[in-house]
Amino acid sequence: MRVEIWSDIACPWCYVGKARFEKALAAFPHRDQVEVVHRSFELDPGRAKGDIETVTSMLTKKYGMSAAQVDAGEDNLAQLAAAEGLGYRTRGRDHGSTFDMHRLLHLAKEQGRQAELLQVLYRANFADERSVYSEGDERLVGLAVAAGLDAEDARKVLADPDAYADDVRADEREAAQLGAGGVPFFVLDRKVGVSGAQPAEVFSQALTQAWGERQPLQLIDSGDAEACGPDGCAVPPQH
Amino acid sequence: MRVEIWSDIACPWCYVGKARFEKALAAFPHRDQVEVVHRSFELDPGRAKGDIETVTSMLTKKYGMSAAQVDAGEDNLAQLAAAEGLGYRTRGRDHGSTFDMHRLLHLAKEQGRQAELLQVLYRANFADERSVYSEGDERLVGLAVAAGLDAEDARKVLADPDAYADDVRADEREAAQLGAGGVPFFVLDRKVGVSGAQPAEVFSQALTQAWGERQPLQLIDSGDAEACGPDGCAVPPQH
Repeated sequence: MRVEIWSDIACPWCYVGKARFEKALAAFPHRDQVEVVHRSFELDPGRAKGDIETVTSMLTKKYGMSAAQVDAGEDNLAQLAAAEGLGYRTRGRDHGSTFDMHRLLHLAKEQGRQAELLQVLYRANFADERSVYSEGDERLVGLAVAAGLDAEDARKVLADPDAYADDVRADEREAAQLGAGGVPFFVLDRKVGVSGAQPAEVFSQALTQAWGERQPLQLIDSGDAEACGPDGCAVPPQH
Repeated sequence: MRVEIWSDIACPWCYVGKARFEKALAAFPHRDQVEVVHRSFELDPGRAKGDIETVTSMLTKKYGMSAAQVDAGEDNLAQLAAAEGLGYRTRGRDHGSTFDMHRLLHLAKEQGRQAELLQVLYRANFADERSVYSEGDERLVGLAVAAGLDAEDARKVLADPDAYADDVRADEREAAQLGAGGVPFFVLDRKVGVSGAQPAEVFSQALTQAWGERQPLQLIDSGDAEACGPDGCAVPPQH
């Protein structure tokens, strides 16, 4: 079974929801047969690479929240994150473009390091004192290396804005096709969808439901199969 | 859509069937949304690493074929391979354990090089004058490097018989669960199965059928979704 999770590094509910999903997965009897794939989703796709501000500034300007409302929301998120064992820095976080991070996540996927990099990026964005946006490409190179990637590979991707850009866009198109208007968005075997950072019990239910709906294969049979098995290979037809 | 292909490097129908499938895939309108994954299947899982003989010797001893029957079968396979643009050495090929090659294919999967290594191994086994079995680990290291893997990574895996062994066994257990008694065995989105090196038209039909059966997601809704979208993040409930 395959679980695809659309999310953005800048999305606090994705950070919390991932931990809740992982709790459900750890308790799922068939967890060894579940593969998890990260899919890209940018909450702020129009934002340019150098356009950085604080989360507070972004939320007050874009959504008209008061600074007190932002602080209360952040404090609450920190509590919910702590309940999942996650650190959360409530004041002074930055907001910026996550496009480069998604491109790096596709590089990491090719190298079998996607889960590691995703966790490193979430932690850096939500729990570290240092910004993931304002220190330039070398900050992301350092995080990529912490996830087991090669520094030079990461540098090359960051220096070329086209590298893995199509992969990020393809994920985002697919999210739209699947009806995902927000993230986190969980898709199990392309059958069952879960929207949002639901309680672990909801993820457990989704895993059980998708597992139960696995169907017997419909075998397309076109007569003699040219195949090999434990008893040898089919003798090819004589021409 | 995901296509999983169970196969063995020592299986001539897998070599030919892969090319036929790829012909169908190249003509499939949604090919950009199709992901292909190799799965391990050993035709001769009981064979020890050093136990090497010629294909002719194996076929005559194990299946009671005459040398003339073996030669005729190999000539025929060479014709069918040539029709797909593939080389095929009809005389003097070796037979042995493919376990180490499957372990390397799982290493290659982690590094995004599985398709490359699979093609390199097939070509080496079926078209090269040199044996993939009798020259020791360094022969496989050379093939891994030709597929873009790091020589030292490949050497480490070959030196440790447990490395990726569980992954190979898990693929083989899954083949049995899906009802695959032989290979190649193609599974499309875990819905449609195709057994054997069928003509490209059969693979085209299978791709079209599986694509048409993609279903709308069943969304599990548990009330308020804690999620972020283009219009901001849900304000967390106040405790």
